[in-house]
Amino acid sequence: MSDTATEPTPTAAVLIIGNEILSGRTQDTNLSFIAKFLGGIGVRLREARVVPDVEAEIVAAINALRDRYTYVFTTGGIGPTHDDITAECVAKAFGVALIQNPEARRRLEDHYKGTDMLNAARLRMANTPEGATLIDNPVSSAPGFQIGNVFVMAGVPMIMQAMLRGLQNRLAGGAPVLARTVISGIPEGTLAEGLGAIQTAYGEAVDIGSYPFFRQGKISTSLVLRGTDAALLDKAAADVADLVRRNGGEPEVRDGYGG
Amino acid sequence: MSDTATEPTPTAAVLIIGNEILSGRTQDTNLSFIAKFLGGIGVRLREARVVPDVEAEIVAAINALRDRYTYVFTTGGIGPTHDDITAECVAKAFGVALIQNPEARRRLEDHYKGTDMLNAARLRMANTPEGATLIDNPVSSAPGFQIGNVFVMAGVPMIMQAMLRGLQNRLAGGAPVLARTVISGIPEGTLAEGLGAIQTAYGEAVDIGSYPFFRQGKISTSLVLRGTDAALLDKAAADVADLVRRNGGEPEVRDGYGG
Repeated sequence: MSDTATEPTPTAAVLIIGNEILSGRTQDTNLSFIAKFLGGIGVRLREARVVPDVEAEIVAAINALRDRYTYVFTTGGIGPTHDDITAECVAKAFGVALIQNPEARRRLEDHYKGTDMLNAARLRMANTPEGATLIDNPVSSAPGFQIGNVFVMAGVPMIMQAMLRGLQNRLAGGAPVLARTVISGIPEGTLAEGLGAIQTAYGEAVDIGSYPFFRQGKISTSLVLRGTDAALLDKAAADVADLVRRNGGEPEVRDGYGG
Repeated sequence: MSDTATEPTPTAAVLIIGNEILSGRTQDTNLSFIAKFLGGIGVRLREARVVPDVEAEIVAAINALRDRYTYVFTTGGIGPTHDDITAECVAKAFGVALIQNPEARRRLEDHYKGTDMLNAARLRMANTPEGATLIDNPVSSAPGFQIGNVFVMAGVPMIMQAMLRGLQNRLAGGAPVLARTVISGIPEGTLAEGLGAIQTAYGEAVDIGSYPFFRQGKISTSLVLRGTDAALLDKAAADVADLVRRNGGEPEVRDGYGG
């Protein structure tokens, strides 16, 4: 085993901030995007939380998560309106002042140049905790920011995705998480015993999940294998496919989460 | 103010259990469904967490949430496979034994009657913490369960939704949460100051959120007002619509989260 392989795998949590998620008004899609992005750079997403636009809740969640995980990614609450309080909350969580960040202000001035749109409300988007570094927003200029291990991003998916892509070189990852999917066509209860035995045989090197779904009114199962060793993953997927065949199914093995 | 109005509003948390959400493999849709259902019966969803299929994480989250909220709803991890460990974890969280629930077993026997499908793995779906009451599963028979203020449901959306609908008479709600949406057609930064003043004027009786979105490549804003008093909500929505008009927009006011 190489030296790098003994490094602990970096971990992460996502904190989704916003009443609109907890009211059901908005269907969050940021979590699955961030999850896949992190898997691709070898960071394991271990927890997510959704909290309302309430200062005490946001501060408590940031502090709970930043102590526990290598990285924390927040989404939402960095716009110009009264319900956008994430920057203040992150400053409180870190016990530092909220300041007007000169570079953030410059970017906003540049973006709104020639208009009278840069009012006091929009200028709030230049506020960051003292000591924060900016996260680029190539869509609408108002930046996110990083302080310590916390990365504060927009909630609008198009902007969040652009911010996250720009962060890649700031994140120390590990071996990318790879996946194989075996679609079984038969119910999971029939495979459960054999599947448990395969999981035991591979231990922590391969994580096997079983996900039932309905297809043409019939219950079917996707068996998803995840790990960082492609050859081991292929071997485990072949074992699962054999199990499906022994139970009368016709397995389809796919790369990734396909299916 | 009537006696019932002085009752504290019931609160809830959702605990989503499953590696498939944290890997990005599965896009969760249960949270928004539960959120809207709870809003309709006057229960305020205050927090959601997503945890992996890891016993210590599930137990800790259940205990943190059940102490804090009127109700906790869990999704996922109650199937027959090795990664389905929710029942064991809930029993540990409550410090009670995991037992084979006779009525749950009867339902499974009934469902699988005339087949040889009720193997040891599927019988695990009859296990509940001691003292739990069952939650009906009209789709595939394997029940969820309730213990204390914790309601344990399936992760498959079709089954979860059927379980939740069947729970309505067990939940003490409050006044339903109503919503109005004002679509502004102009960016939120332009409205922010006026919107903040309206929020301050209505205080906690009306919660106003501002959500930018892109339409035909142009940034627009949905202003969402929530509360339990329909007349007050209509008045606040009219104030917001006036604000939009004063800023040169043509507001559309809709019931609910429409738009």
